[in-house]
Amino acid sequence: MSKKALSGFPEWLPADELVQQDLLTILRREFSLHGYVPLHTRAVEPLSALLSKGGDTDKEIYVLKRLSDAPEKAAELGLHFDLTVPFARYVAANRGQLTFPFRRYQIQPAWRGERPQLGRYREFLQADIDIIGSEKLDVRYDGEIVRLLAHTMGALPVPRTKLMINNRKVLEGLYRGLGIEDITGTLRIVDKLDKIGPEKVATLLVEAGRSAEVADRCLAIAEISSTVGGELESQVRALGIEHELLDVGLGELSSVLDQCADVSSADVVADLRIARGLDYYTGTVVEGVFVGHDLSTVCSGGRYDNLAGGGKARLPGVGASIGVTRIMGYCLNLGLFDALPGYGRASTADVMVAVHGEDSRTDSEAVARQLRARGVSTVVCHTSKGYGKQIGWADKAGIPYVWMPARGDNGHTVKDIRSGEQVPASPEDWSPV
Amino acid sequence: MSKKALSGFPEWLPADELVQQDLLTILRREFSLHGYVPLHTRAVEPLSALLSKGGDTDKEIYVLKRLSDAPEKAAELGLHFDLTVPFARYVAANRGQLTFPFRRYQIQPAWRGERPQLGRYREFLQADIDIIGSEKLDVRYDGEIVRLLAHTMGALPVPRTKLMINNRKVLEGLYRGLGIEDITGTLRIVDKLDKIGPEKVATLLVEAGRSAEVADRCLAIAEISSTVGGELESQVRALGIEHELLDVGLGELSSVLDQCADVSSADVVADLRIARGLDYYTGTVVEGVFVGHDLSTVCSGGRYDNLAGGGKARLPGVGASIGVTRIMGYCLNLGLFDALPGYGRASTADVMVAVHGEDSRTDSEAVARQLRARGVSTVVCHTSKGYGKQIGWADKAGIPYVWMPARGDNGHTVKDIRSGEQVPASPEDWSPV
Repeated sequence: MSKKALSGFPEWLPADELVQQDLLTILRREFSLHGYVPLHTRAVEPLSALLSKGGDTDKEIYVLKRLSDAPEKAAELGLHFDLTVPFARYVAANRGQLTFPFRRYQIQPAWRGERPQLGRYREFLQADIDIIGSEKLDVRYDGEIVRLLAHTMGALPVPRTKLMINNRKVLEGLYRGLGIEDITGTLRIVDKLDKIGPEKVATLLVEAGRSAEVADRCLAIAEISSTVGGELESQVRALGIEHELLDVGLGELSSVLDQCADVSSADVVADLRIARGLDYYTGTVVEGVFVGHDLSTVCSGGRYDNLAGGGKARLPGVGASIGVTRIMGYCLNLGLFDALPGYGRASTADVMVAVHGEDSRTDSEAVARQLRARGVSTVVCHTSKGYGKQIGWADKAGIPYVWMPARGDNGHTVKDIRSGEQVPASPEDWSPV
Repeated sequence: MSKKALSGFPEWLPADELVQQDLLTILRREFSLHGYVPLHTRAVEPLSALLSKGGDTDKEIYVLKRLSDAPEKAAELGLHFDLTVPFARYVAANRGQLTFPFRRYQIQPAWRGERPQLGRYREFLQADIDIIGSEKLDVRYDGEIVRLLAHTMGALPVPRTKLMINNRKVLEGLYRGLGIEDITGTLRIVDKLDKIGPEKVATLLVEAGRSAEVADRCLAIAEISSTVGGELESQVRALGIEHELLDVGLGELSSVLDQCADVSSADVVADLRIARGLDYYTGTVVEGVFVGHDLSTVCSGGRYDNLAGGGKARLPGVGASIGVTRIMGYCLNLGLFDALPGYGRASTADVMVAVHGEDSRTDSEAVARQLRARGVSTVVCHTSKGYGKQIGWADKAGIPYVWMPARGDNGHTVKDIRSGEQVPASPEDWSPV
């Protein structure tokens, strides 16, 4: 990470930024391949549109004012804390000009004023995929999102991902079947299970007014997990809790699980512990973690039936978000990128053209132009002093080849500074390996 | 532009966003080809680092606070108003880990709380290229930046660009030679020439304490323009003003102009009217406009010898910024993208696979997977009702081909919905034209 950083606002050094660019290129390619159109929304939303959509995160919203605004003027704008709320607003505002079901991807930063730690940032890059339907959106699209999420995570040079799916209706049905009325409050407490453990969750539930027996049953629910739809249903039915919302949610959850039966790029498992912190989810929820690493969620998402739309229009949606900055932070911390081919390069150039002397710099420039015209990324050395110094500069910048322009009777040669091998070459047909 | 926009915070509809993505792809490709490494800096800077770097723009800075911060707590952070100030800070902070001269490109939004109008936004995407040197940076790099700017603008599907270059030292030398002491104040007034015209500039100069004769001579200086270094020098010398800074600046300006003598992708001209509003420029300044359009600057930049570094280190830099959002705004306003091939598509998919019935949806999904595995961007139709309805959906989304999966004795066919032609095809080798 870059030095003298502002805590929670990470910046990468060139070699790591090049890895991040590779990740983004893979994400853009995979999302485009599945017909997701790229979109950008503004970084700001009216503060009123951000409040009460984020669950516990309201107080973490960054509000904006112009420096010249009067101190007593109330802030009207805030920076978005995710890409789902702005996308839902965009779709509702432009629904007459969009074709539904509408698929888009969006790669932008989001901001939350949380306490910074490894994997938790105040400014972080997210890569989101979402589908929004007009009036209705089949549970098939929940499956599409989970499948694409699995496929995309599998295409990145990161550890294998385990995607844990659940359904808010399953939890709400079970909770209501247990006589719980404060569903959101209960969900938020159970969502802390991984962070604080079952005993503290039970204590919090009792403090929040649940009986000790109900708290125990909430924990028993959270124990259920399965990779097969039918098996999942048996486990849930064995709890002996009945509610019509449970039936609906269980059908959806089994369907998503079954749609992912042939997925090989990630582990997909139904896990009733998964609740998600955000308030806007209404059905499917998903969280992804790196298999074999005790780290927090690297991707997540879910179904939101009531976030977009309002008024006459119903615009149900489902989507997922890949935490690019968090993935970068984890992988850099684990040293996982060191083994990537070419890792450590700090220039996009494949070749540096050496300069024999300032009087022949134009010859070196001409070689560079020929190479670039053929798509070879090229720089000309800044100095004409000593070849050793020039090669040393290329080496330090991580540029693998040095071009020695023709001079007198000697033709062009190119040196691979990793192997030391130097061979004749022509700017008309040479390419880096 | 997207409906119900927040004034000054533009968002594009899918068809236009796809054009913007094409622009960004071209920019990334050209910058990489010249050895510029991609970087991202955080969106925020300490407010103290932003103040007094922007000239007149201080009051337009957006400051940030957490919603939970006490009202009386002073804001400490602001959103950057350009990408040069954060990049200079990044280089100074990480100079031990960078290789100089250090070339980078950076494509990110910036924010200024200005009064919105066509081409002037509160949030706008910029694409910047910069080179920063350690201790010194030859004027050759000023030429490299102007050349790359010309090359890149020429590679975009936008009107031809005219790049007007000047040098702050030329203006300062001339002004000092005329006995003017308030250089920055004079530059800022002369910079308004295109907006308010010569008479008002003369009035403002006199109001600021210049004599009427000096004001006239400032305007005469601003009249000078040439495409040839030697000719430029004669014109300037004919003014009869002498100052050692003028000699240095004129040498640099002539050099940059001569380095661009063979540039064909844009018009490059020395124009002494160009001053630039930002305070940090110390030498070369450049502004680009669309030839034949009475619009504001679409790209700009210059040399900044004292922005990075400080303390022991001198880190002189030169760079340029392409106003992506402004270019989008102008070109959309002029309808210039309408003629681009494929303009109007609102999906990244090349082909939509039709669905004969819900019972054969998995067959359609299998075709989609085969096509995607070969890099063909594909969606499966959301409905299995009527082929007319399905083709209509693809047409509305701007997807050019519809795939009819094999069924019974009939093999796969693909229909070009622009021509209506329908031909047999195999998912193993078909590609869109």
